[in-house]
Amino acid sequence: MAEKETEISTLGEFGLIDHITESFKLNNESSIVGVGDDAAVLDYRNKKTLVTTDLLLEGIHFDLRYVALKHLGYKAAVVNFSDIYAMNGRPKQITVSLGISKRFTIEHIEQLYEGIKLACEHYGVDLVGGDTSASVTGLIISITCIGEGEEGNIVYRNGAKDTDLICVSGDLGAAYMGLQLLERELNVSHEVGEGFEPAFQGREYLLERQLKPEARRDVIEELASIGVKPTAMMDVSDGLSSELMHICKQSGTGCRIYEDRIPIDYQTAIMAEEFNMNLVTAALNGGEDYELLFTVPLVDHEKVAAMKSAKIIGRITKPELGCYMVTRDDNEIALQAQGWNAFAAK
Amino acid sequence: MAEKETEISTLGEFGLIDHITESFKLNNESSIVGVGDDAAVLDYRNKKTLVTTDLLLEGIHFDLRYVALKHLGYKAAVVNFSDIYAMNGRPKQITVSLGISKRFTIEHIEQLYEGIKLACEHYGVDLVGGDTSASVTGLIISITCIGEGEEGNIVYRNGAKDTDLICVSGDLGAAYMGLQLLERELNVSHEVGEGFEPAFQGREYLLERQLKPEARRDVIEELASIGVKPTAMMDVSDGLSSELMHICKQSGTGCRIYEDRIPIDYQTAIMAEEFNMNLVTAALNGGEDYELLFTVPLVDHEKVAAMKSAKIIGRITKPELGCYMVTRDDNEIALQAQGWNAFAAK
Repeated sequence: MAEKETEISTLGEFGLIDHITESFKLNNESSIVGVGDDAAVLDYRNKKTLVTTDLLLEGIHFDLRYVALKHLGYKAAVVNFSDIYAMNGRPKQITVSLGISKRFTIEHIEQLYEGIKLACEHYGVDLVGGDTSASVTGLIISITCIGEGEEGNIVYRNGAKDTDLICVSGDLGAAYMGLQLLERELNVSHEVGEGFEPAFQGREYLLERQLKPEARRDVIEELASIGVKPTAMMDVSDGLSSELMHICKQSGTGCRIYEDRIPIDYQTAIMAEEFNMNLVTAALNGGEDYELLFTVPLVDHEKVAAMKSAKIIGRITKPELGCYMVTRDDNEIALQAQGWNAFAAK
Repeated sequence: MAEKETEISTLGEFGLIDHITESFKLNNESSIVGVGDDAAVLDYRNKKTLVTTDLLLEGIHFDLRYVALKHLGYKAAVVNFSDIYAMNGRPKQITVSLGISKRFTIEHIEQLYEGIKLACEHYGVDLVGGDTSASVTGLIISITCIGEGEEGNIVYRNGAKDTDLICVSGDLGAAYMGLQLLERELNVSHEVGEGFEPAFQGREYLLERQLKPEARRDVIEELASIGVKPTAMMDVSDGLSSELMHICKQSGTGCRIYEDRIPIDYQTAIMAEEFNMNLVTAALNGGEDYELLFTVPLVDHEKVAAMKSAKIIGRITKPELGCYMVTRDDNEIALQAQGWNAFAAK
């Protein structure tokens, strides 16, 4: 993978941390002291502090046979930023803890941090701490992201109300189809052997959505610019169906979404056909979209209907009406929380 | 281990988190919203926010053949609190992320959280978030602790000045000797087989220091009560020698500590003799003491000399004098940063 290979033990735990973090500078006003002491020091003054954390494990959440370490670093950071945006907040700091097995060299870890750094620069986030250790097997990435929210502007999952409009940003199912594509090509490459060229042409969007997702800062910014505060919001990491049911459960409501309103990219549709998969199922349950799902009062209809970054896909109902998708032929199908269960998956 | 054994997949990721966290209540004023949304919401108002994080891996940092899960949970939380106290701060919230392999049952995870809960209650800390996932092998614990510090009262590692007094709380080397004892008895038990009784009597203190360490909140409180603000401080997790050299390096100073001033418990001394180990080496480099090492201005001599929880062990010098321990027979031995290098250790 790397041209130069340097064993991590040559630097040791402290050497590695020093070596990697010296290229990260603090840029946010709220970052007072970063790496190098027992704890980082932050100052959020009159803002609220938002905290989210994600644990990513090799063999469970990622497969290094088709994920580049730089992309992995980028994605690991971005999925945490996404959680902060989903509170209508702004990510400001992260801590990165790594468990690293013997097969990784210093150059590998540098690649991983290159991706983390790129994400930090792109989203204006400071690296302020972490912990690094040997691991018995594989790579372990634990990231905590800290962000700021303004009193009264933070959006929870439990605020959706009857008649609210349901909106989602971007399109759904592409990251899932990207994963299917990567797994298929990996299997084919094992069969074909040397000289194999994966069939990625024309499917770049699917790969990008899987390998290098973005957090929807632009949605938060557009909502602010049009003066709309969602009543509930979360990011779509486990599939639209599962996330919408979280919002309905926590808000004590039901919902109707419309099949023909669910945003799906052209490449996703083609790929689903090729795999002989139900397209809407992939879009509803695929996961890893990192789009924002939110609800807004009906009175904001005109404003959100004109949004570039998001689309209205349904409405919130009274709880006794349940959670359903209305199909193109006017049937109602109950939504299911098929959210990814890592414990049952393997 | 547990009487009842329930596979984790029966609850799934969300079920497990809900099940475990429902017994944790928020008690701190700064904890606005805890588990259950995309991020926790905290409010530190006019205080500074301190953030520290630790990654603990089975087979590297702990061995479940002699560590009970409840103790492990307690220790995993407490070592993070220790980092916040080491900034002269107060721990207020933690997030707990777990990677759990197939051999663990729900009852096991409950035991782990029992320990975390006990630590949270004892130190007044709220659990506000986390992430839970299957792991391919072993148990992974990633904890981030957030705490508060007052502007002007936060203590860094880089503030030690020439003529400052060097102080350390409690005693050193006991946790390390406890680990040696546990490993020896485990080996003997394999040889002897059934009916083996480990030789723990009279060595309870060593086991407690290794298995259920405490963070020195009392030291922070005593310092506040006598009106002393340390010039530099950190907690002793990698051994006194290594930590003292961190303070000297970051402060740009040298130091002298005195062999006959290094606090060592009676049980530690007996155990070192039994193992034919150099007692002072164990105390200087043993690690996992979680005592507080700090420096205070010479003018505070009288106050710190009267402290119950800590003891003066030396003084800060000009940098050109280097970092040395003065032995009982008046020789000077250079301190070495033998801090635990997890990458070289295995």
